[in-house]
Amino acid sequence: MEKESLSESACDFRTVALVGKYQSASVAEALGRLSAFLQTRGVSVLVDEDTSRVVGGVGGARAVTFEQIAEKADLAIVLGGDGTLLAAARRLAVNTVPLLGINQGRLGFLTDIGRDEMLERVGEILDGQYLRERRALLEAEVLRDGVPVFTSLALNDVVASRGEIGRMIEFELTVDGEYIYSQRSDGVIVATPTGSTAYALSANGPILHPRLAGMVLVPLSPHGLTYRPIALSHDSVVDIRIVAPHDARIHYDGQTLFDAHGGDCVRVRRSDQSVTLLHPPGYSYFAVLREKLHWSSTPRLS
Amino acid sequence: MEKESLSESACDFRTVALVGKYQSASVAEALGRLSAFLQTRGVSVLVDEDTSRVVGGVGGARAVTFEQIAEKADLAIVLGGDGTLLAAARRLAVNTVPLLGINQGRLGFLTDIGRDEMLERVGEILDGQYLRERRALLEAEVLRDGVPVFTSLALNDVVASRGEIGRMIEFELTVDGEYIYSQRSDGVIVATPTGSTAYALSANGPILHPRLAGMVLVPLSPHGLTYRPIALSHDSVVDIRIVAPHDARIHYDGQTLFDAHGGDCVRVRRSDQSVTLLHPPGYSYFAVLREKLHWSSTPRLS
Amino acid sequence: MEKESLSESACDFRTVALVGKYQSASVAEALGRLSAFLQTRGVSVLVDEDTSRVVGGVGGARAVTFEQIAEKADLAIVLGGDGTLLAAARRLAVNTVPLLGINQGRLGFLTDIGRDEMLERVGEILDGQYLRERRALLEAEVLRDGVPVFTSLALNDVVASRGEIGRMIEFELTVDGEYIYSQRSDGVIVATPTGSTAYALSANGPILHPRLAGMVLVPLSPHGLTYRPIALSHDSVVDIRIVAPHDARIHYDGQTLFDAHGGDCVRVRRSDQSVTLLHPPGYSYFAVLREKLHWSSTPRLS
Amino acid sequence: MEKESLSESACDFRTVALVGKYQSASVAEALGRLSAFLQTRGVSVLVDEDTSRVVGGVGGARAVTFEQIAEKADLAIVLGGDGTLLAAARRLAVNTVPLLGINQGRLGFLTDIGRDEMLERVGEILDGQYLRERRALLEAEVLRDGVPVFTSLALNDVVASRGEIGRMIEFELTVDGEYIYSQRSDGVIVATPTGSTAYALSANGPILHPRLAGMVLVPLSPHGLTYRPIALSHDSVVDIRIVAPHDARIHYDGQTLFDAHGGDCVRVRRSDQSVTLLHPPGYSYFAVLREKLHWSSTPRLS
Repeated sequence: MEKESLSESACDFRTVALVGKYQSASVAEALGRLSAFLQTRGVSVLVDEDTSRVVGGVGGARAVTFEQIAEKADLAIVLGGDGTLLAAARRLAVNTVPLLGINQGRLGFLTDIGRDEMLERVGEILDGQYLRERRALLEAEVLRDGVPVFTSLALNDVVASRGEIGRMIEFELTVDGEYIYSQRSDGVIVATPTGSTAYALSANGPILHPRLAGMVLVPLSPHGLTYRPIALSHDSVVDIRIVAPHDARIHYDGQTLFDAHGGDCVRVRRSDQSVTLLHPPGYSYFAVLREKLHWSSTPRLS
Repeated sequence: MEKESLSESACDFRTVALVGKYQSASVAEALGRLSAFLQTRGVSVLVDEDTSRVVGGVGGARAVTFEQIAEKADLAIVLGGDGTLLAAARRLAVNTVPLLGINQGRLGFLTDIGRDEMLERVGEILDGQYLRERRALLEAEVLRDGVPVFTSLALNDVVASRGEIGRMIEFELTVDGEYIYSQRSDGVIVATPTGSTAYALSANGPILHPRLAGMVLVPLSPHGLTYRPIALSHDSVVDIRIVAPHDARIHYDGQTLFDAHGGDCVRVRRSDQSVTLLHPPGYSYFAVLREKLHWSSTPRLS
Repeated sequence: MEKESLSESACDFRTVALVGKYQSASVAEALGRLSAFLQTRGVSVLVDEDTSRVVGGVGGARAVTFEQIAEKADLAIVLGGDGTLLAAARRLAVNTVPLLGINQGRLGFLTDIGRDEMLERVGEILDGQYLRERRALLEAEVLRDGVPVFTSLALNDVVASRGEIGRMIEFELTVDGEYIYSQRSDGVIVATPTGSTAYALSANGPILHPRLAGMVLVPLSPHGLTYRPIALSHDSVVDIRIVAPHDARIHYDGQTLFDAHGGDCVRVRRSDQSVTLLHPPGYSYFAVLREKLHWSSTPRLS
Repeated sequence: MEKESLSESACDFRTVALVGKYQSASVAEALGRLSAFLQTRGVSVLVDEDTSRVVGGVGGARAVTFEQIAEKADLAIVLGGDGTLLAAARRLAVNTVPLLGINQGRLGFLTDIGRDEMLERVGEILDGQYLRERRALLEAEVLRDGVPVFTSLALNDVVASRGEIGRMIEFELTVDGEYIYSQRSDGVIVATPTGSTAYALSANGPILHPRLAGMVLVPLSPHGLTYRPIALSHDSVVDIRIVAPHDARIHYDGQTLFDAHGGDCVRVRRSDQSVTLLHPPGYSYFAVLREKLHWSSTPRLS
């Protein structure tokens, strides 16, 4: 959501942190090249310590913790897929370090720079040529007897789905204190606009443009054919109360889990924090969708 | 969209206009009772002249044109279904006369007061006991060689679908000047939150809560399985450019038609005008959905 | 699938077994009434021993194992919901004891006789007034290194979905030895016509009429928007090969589970066995759907 | 539907007819090459007279009517897209002349031979190397006051959708004499397995494998969210009775039209005739789908 703007000032990025794909040594070479390039531009380079360990160190880059990246970096460059960027975004959200995603294979929704054009695009960005975009985050806490027992952030989605046992869950849905319905299903997704093109899209949810001030509830195989995706205003508070005897597993961006019990309430709302993504100047949200979804790109009229 | 608020001041409604179902004499008795009741409350009563003609006059009510209603009435009470309310809303939008819908059969999304409780609810409203809700309108103009040749408002939806000939249409979609895709399909719906539970829902669109500041594009049987509903910010401008040789018929709330040609551009955006609906104090948007969509209404937890 | 026929011969049912809802004492009274009624008609009455234990015995009915029911009963009457009938059907399939379902609450797809009309309908059936319908069963075996490690029957569906760990599964699909695709998703359903109105319908699958000689594959939230339900001929053999590192849980009618590993192959085909359902003379497959799905039942033309 | 078989006998095709894309001169060169090739193989070559006129004659090929093709040709080779093949199939169905489709651009579902490999594949087929496949046809007659006023065949689908006026249709559906439901919608599709990957797929219908002995009803944007695609046995008879005041337009493969009135009944059933398609030896139904639908074709397990 929120506006995109083309930055005009150069030299914003004096300290840049590199984050590589989780547990993958395949990005070693790209990290090395990128680090060398940044140094020629007078940038101080950090590297996430897990990435550093897996690739055996990155030349000229100091290995630091994510906490240190959050504190010191002016920009984090992520080399991996959308999953890698999601993980970094959730960890750096507190200090709103802007993120730049470079995909290592197929184009991602969030990692929209190709490996081949990496140095060229990063160079432009150091020159101040980029678009800055804010993306909303969700915050979901699990309440047990009214007391929070777990909380985490999500850039894509919060999902309540079946736990260890059983094939479904049952829950009551309340929005802004208003009872909506009871449902038995495989689960329910609450997605941001960013997440609307991820898991929620597979579950028949709509695409929400990032500028839309909203979020969307998407049921998973609900008992009853009239439970449809519902898009809500971004300031709504969604309560998902798990009905015993079923328990439920709560997923945050498919990366963090919490096992909720019958009676627990999962309260989802927009976070006060947000994620800042940088894009190269030519970036187009719909151009990425068009390519990934194979939409027809043949304008026949000029 | 926008906030609901519970009014506190009484006596807002000194002149009330009555509008009955189009070409239907079945509402004569209800109109008479309502007119009599309003007069006992000291209210000056008008009646739409078409309604008046069809039912053979309404006692104590002066038959006037819609233009006069728009000028003079403080409130319009519509007796009919959602279609009747849509028609009245579009005609009274200029002067934002608030509307109250009384269904004459099944509960409607917009006509949420039952015939049985009519006098009681209207009485409460005259006492100042009601919720006031703003709903967004769309405005769509058809441009031919860049020049507007037709324009109209819609409370539910603007639809471009096949014209006289052929089984499909072809169009290019642009949002805020950005090219999205070309598509062959049976057509495309642009719906407000209000319209998201009407035709768009039949075409697999999501439900948009009225408070969501958005609208939704829903393709009709598109060639290509990845053309999905797209929810946009309410300030977006949508251009649907019809590709020849196909022509297209443009529908406004399914009530007004315009035959567009290949090359024409249908420009859809939120109108500066909006519609004000009144609801009885106990009104709940989701309760109406729950009843109409047969959602499970059995909260098992307190 | 297969033909329905109206039986003409009476006195087919000399020994009738009763099966009650799993672990529920609520059917005690109905079982007692039914047993008494059957005895007045000269029928020998058996009762499933689990049912008997839970309800504290059924007057005049001998408690026996399911194996004994399969051997001796000419008819099994199930009092419960569709789940109760599914469980009984799978256990009695070997000997093709016909089944009659009496719902204890809401109308079921399989339990189409109401509790109120129970004695009247059973009486008609003892008089030879009934429809006999064959329904196909699936048989699914799990092959590990080519060797079967588990096999079971399903009247509704066989589902491969995520196991203990992870949020999705990955599998390769082969039909009749022909490779179809690889897919990452929440899982896949293989459903009979009977099962097409159960879980598969929630997952956007089509309705398959029981007379259709087919089955349907329905993916669950697949990555990729073009993976659609595929209806296959009933003599097709479907191989679902689980791709490591994900494991998968295999569900049979949502009642029997098997935990499959990466590399395992789930082979699904129509069973040689089938289930025989009895219905009262007025039974209509579509009338049941119409009621359960709230289809409009107002023919306006004669 | 029905079985595929690999032919073994050579020399089946002594007279071959060529049919080009409707009103398109773009296939002239390909027709010429193909005609020359066939003559070197001793085959007598005919060409559809409309095609001949548009391309200015085909060397060595005699221009004849479709009736003459139906009588004399042992094989019809269609150069165009799926639409060209559909049109030829419907006209040649009476005499069951086998058809071979050569696409002139993108791969089609029915035209599965590429232009580049045309001569090689046709050569193989003349050598007797091919698969022969039967595809079901639908026959739909329009009854007015019980009397047929129009009838035609369809290889893909029969569609009842809105006529000149109005935005929807209303109809009553009966299958095998059993009343199913009344529906208001944009229309309804009855599709063969062949047609299940065409318009019906756009309207959220399932894929029906050609070997499945069935057809499928797919509603178009029905009022009511529980009207889902219904797959029926191939021997079912479907009656769609148009309810006045709406009229309806009946489409056969999107190529032939008939304007039906309120009260008319459209009776759809499988035709006694069928279409025979030839495919090159390596043909795979699912391989075509995989390519056209962008399914993942990366088997990770051997």
